[in-house]
Amino acid sequence: MSDSIKRGRTVQSIANAVQGTVHGDADVVVFALNRIEYARNGDLSFLSAASYTKFLGVTKASCVLVSKALEVAVPDGLTVVFVEDAYRAFVALMREFYPPLRIESGLRHATASVHPSATIHPSAAISAGCSIGEGCVVGEDVQLYPNVVLYPGCTVGAGTVIHANVSCLHGTVIGTNCLIHAGAVLGADGFGYIENADGSFDKVPQVGVVQIGNDVEIGANVTIDRAAVGATSICDRVKIDNLVHIAHNVTVGNDTAIAAQAGVSGSTRIGNRNRIAGQVGIVGHITTADDVIVEAQSGVSKTITSKGAYFGSPAKEHRTALRMEAALRQLPQLLTDVREMQQRIADLLANSEPNDESLTQP
Amino acid sequence: MSDSIKRGRTVQSIANAVQGTVHGDADVVVFALNRIEYARNGDLSFLSAASYTKFLGVTKASCVLVSKALEVAVPDGLTVVFVEDAYRAFVALMREFYPPLRIESGLRHATASVHPSATIHPSAAISAGCSIGEGCVVGEDVQLYPNVVLYPGCTVGAGTVIHANVSCLHGTVIGTNCLIHAGAVLGADGFGYIENADGSFDKVPQVGVVQIGNDVEIGANVTIDRAAVGATSICDRVKIDNLVHIAHNVTVGNDTAIAAQAGVSGSTRIGNRNRIAGQVGIVGHITTADDVIVEAQSGVSKTITSKGAYFGSPAKEHRTALRMEAALRQLPQLLTDVREMQQRIADLLANSEPNDESLTQP
Amino acid sequence: MSDSIKRGRTVQSIANAVQGTVHGDADVVVFALNRIEYARNGDLSFLSAASYTKFLGVTKASCVLVSKALEVAVPDGLTVVFVEDAYRAFVALMREFYPPLRIESGLRHATASVHPSATIHPSAAISAGCSIGEGCVVGEDVQLYPNVVLYPGCTVGAGTVIHANVSCLHGTVIGTNCLIHAGAVLGADGFGYIENADGSFDKVPQVGVVQIGNDVEIGANVTIDRAAVGATSICDRVKIDNLVHIAHNVTVGNDTAIAAQAGVSGSTRIGNRNRIAGQVGIVGHITTADDVIVEAQSGVSKTITSKGAYFGSPAKEHRTALRMEAALRQLPQLLTDVREMQQRIADLLANSEPNDESLTQP
Repeated sequence: MSDSIKRGRTVQSIANAVQGTVHGDADVVVFALNRIEYARNGDLSFLSAASYTKFLGVTKASCVLVSKALEVAVPDGLTVVFVEDAYRAFVALMREFYPPLRIESGLRHATASVHPSATIHPSAAISAGCSIGEGCVVGEDVQLYPNVVLYPGCTVGAGTVIHANVSCLHGTVIGTNCLIHAGAVLGADGFGYIENADGSFDKVPQVGVVQIGNDVEIGANVTIDRAAVGATSICDRVKIDNLVHIAHNVTVGNDTAIAAQAGVSGSTRIGNRNRIAGQVGIVGHITTADDVIVEAQSGVSKTITSKGAYFGSPAKEHRTALRMEAALRQLPQLLTDVREMQQRIADLLANSEPNDESLTQP
Repeated sequence: MSDSIKRGRTVQSIANAVQGTVHGDADVVVFALNRIEYARNGDLSFLSAASYTKFLGVTKASCVLVSKALEVAVPDGLTVVFVEDAYRAFVALMREFYPPLRIESGLRHATASVHPSATIHPSAAISAGCSIGEGCVVGEDVQLYPNVVLYPGCTVGAGTVIHANVSCLHGTVIGTNCLIHAGAVLGADGFGYIENADGSFDKVPQVGVVQIGNDVEIGANVTIDRAAVGATSICDRVKIDNLVHIAHNVTVGNDTAIAAQAGVSGSTRIGNRNRIAGQVGIVGHITTADDVIVEAQSGVSKTITSKGAYFGSPAKEHRTALRMEAALRQLPQLLTDVREMQQRIADLLANSEPNDESLTQP
Repeated sequence: MSDSIKRGRTVQSIANAVQGTVHGDADVVVFALNRIEYARNGDLSFLSAASYTKFLGVTKASCVLVSKALEVAVPDGLTVVFVEDAYRAFVALMREFYPPLRIESGLRHATASVHPSATIHPSAAISAGCSIGEGCVVGEDVQLYPNVVLYPGCTVGAGTVIHANVSCLHGTVIGTNCLIHAGAVLGADGFGYIENADGSFDKVPQVGVVQIGNDVEIGANVTIDRAAVGATSICDRVKIDNLVHIAHNVTVGNDTAIAAQAGVSGSTRIGNRNRIAGQVGIVGHITTADDVIVEAQSGVSKTITSKGAYFGSPAKEHRTALRMEAALRQLPQLLTDVREMQQRIADLLANSEPNDESLTQP
């Protein structure tokens, strides 16, 4: 509670922060942020979509940020702040109202194990139970939460945060300002074998690494395998959701987002700005163009050379997939129709054609 | 072995425990429980399904619990105990024969790291390598296995067991008598971004929490994301299998079960007593009614308003999906039939209609 | 760099090692291995597929291993080594050039917690933050990376390597020379409940174990559940990729490979030498024959009794599935064709049949 009071801000100061115009009481104080439909007294909320305008008359929020373009009528007694983009303004305020959790700068917890050859920036925080291997380099303001394991030869760039129980295997390189969520595994061996004549396997050593660019976010319990030779590369500003699998030697292009439980097989190159939805599977050794969208549960089995939306398993262009899906829904009726037509044709033939048998057996 | 002997019990004492009637030698001693087809001398087994009656004559079990309703003929020399529901009786005995593993009550392992402001019940057990953050509350008889990480502000209710390498991020609330399996991650950031005009993303701070009800079981390596604002809620008695993904702001209703590798996207509300099978995907911002069954690998793309079974991707009512599946199997034949019909119609037309060309070119 | 120089070897010594014949300068020294298309000066590469022959003229590699059968023309100035199987020879050299990471033999890290009753071979390495429970047996040359948790009663066979943050629950048995990647969970409770009349669940105690054979590889963040009663068995030489789920009481036969994000439900028996592709789901209580191939994203819903390839959800024989897929692509056109035929038949009927109505209403 003392925390909330500390965070209290006047509507006027908020309007100043988001370049907005106050309509109502600029001295009202707000303490927390909340969705318009759940907001309570003391909350600041936002309205940026016309379909939510209905909540404006009933919200318990003390103040609502409203996108100018909506041209809403403000109910009596409600304080609003008109802004260019209410959602973006709300998100900017979220960062102020709820600054991210931080470990004390420079922490070296007594139960952490740091190899003497590792180079750790004085401002980096190493929590309880972390293991930092030989030759690791940990940059400025890096935050390692409990039980993070960096195998020998890892590099973690400035400003990167790694959450609890993450494992980075040897030689993993992580750029600056990345966010790696709990339980992720970077750099486990790729799934590579030579099949013997008797059906058993010989392991192909996986001697490459994982390279993560800058401003990358990687979800909880994600697995990104090291390359067989060379590098598995996650380029700049990529966002990967929980439980995604990225196989050896894959490249994921800049600004691509991959939703939960999707998987990309070995040596595939995903273009820039792709949007890969949940539970999608992408086979190995193919390429996707820039600006490709793959919809949920699809299976991409071939290289995609043009931007656009793809859907289905195997994935087709969105329009083709929709036509097939629509046709499929008509299929049971089609079967009935065709059986009927067969009967009619049989009748027609019986009527229109002479009976051959009677002719040949006079 | 000494362990097994210690567990030895007479058939009579077992019959008393399960309100059963002995047929055969009540003084026989059993030491372990096993399935009827694998049971050995000294084992107690059970028979509750007619299809397994064939094993009654060949089982090596020393005693078999049999559901009365089966009305089986007991082979000579076999001791059985007739009970109302042999499977439930067997399960009750499993709990007695194999009491769950427990850590020593009140353990505070030397390598655990507990913030001085945390409130830990004297009976709670904190194993090696655990990290308990600022302001955490850990209730009576809680059992934390090695390397569990509780970020600041977590609450763990009485009787809850959390297995190794689980990460609970800040503010996670877990109810009483829950069972959280190894490697689960509760409270990682939801996957929320604003897309910029150039295709890059700005992160939307995820400032909500995860709330787990009472008597909930959560599988190994499951991920349940914290809400953007507010709470992601797993209600009472929910059972979640391994590698399931629950996105931010989802609510899962009471007594729902979700099988392995299923995923639920953001802000969706799953009803009470749903049965979500393995590898199912459910899109965001929808609702399912109570008592909905979604079959394996289905993709639920729309709100489901009536109870019942759904199947397919996109998911349809079970009956509709079965008809489509059956129709699909007939499709190759249908293509052949239609091509034949086209030929017959062409023939009919040739026979029944005057030949236009011959008329116009005398 | 000193490392690379240390690894430098003459082409002649490499030819000797792989039983090859040098064509060109046998005194050339190579320092690293790389793919033919990415190789640089000082690299050794290989050519085993005709489709890559085009790179032979442009590669910057200092030497290329070439499969004899390709009968390539060697460009001027390039040194090659002709061998029986260039890929196998290259893989053998990978093991020499990049010996696997090893923890110091006999390490007992100060922050590891080992129960006094555990039996640890003197050569086994126990890293920081590991927990070894009561009665565990850890064999010769076993390597446990940081934060591995062995619950009471686990056995780890000689030569097995377990990576960071792996959890092995009580009674887990792992054979010799296995490789368990980071974050895997072996022996969590199976997903077993009795459903009550009100839709709530009673947990069925899961009192069995997990047994892993010899030479098994298990991917990052895999989950393999303990049996309800008896054992979940992963047989010898099985290879399991990341994020796979194996449910209670499953058996996976010798030499079977299971790709990422696939799942196998309870009590199913997978045969020997199966190849299960990514994101496949297999229902419970079924069996697959030996030498079965299941293609990506398929759903196996019934026992498979013959070897061969299967595809689709539900999975069908590959040939059947391909025919259905091909038919499906023709479906939208088929609908159009049928509607046309219906019109033609209507026309035919109008022409060929007397108009009943006109007859009855003279």
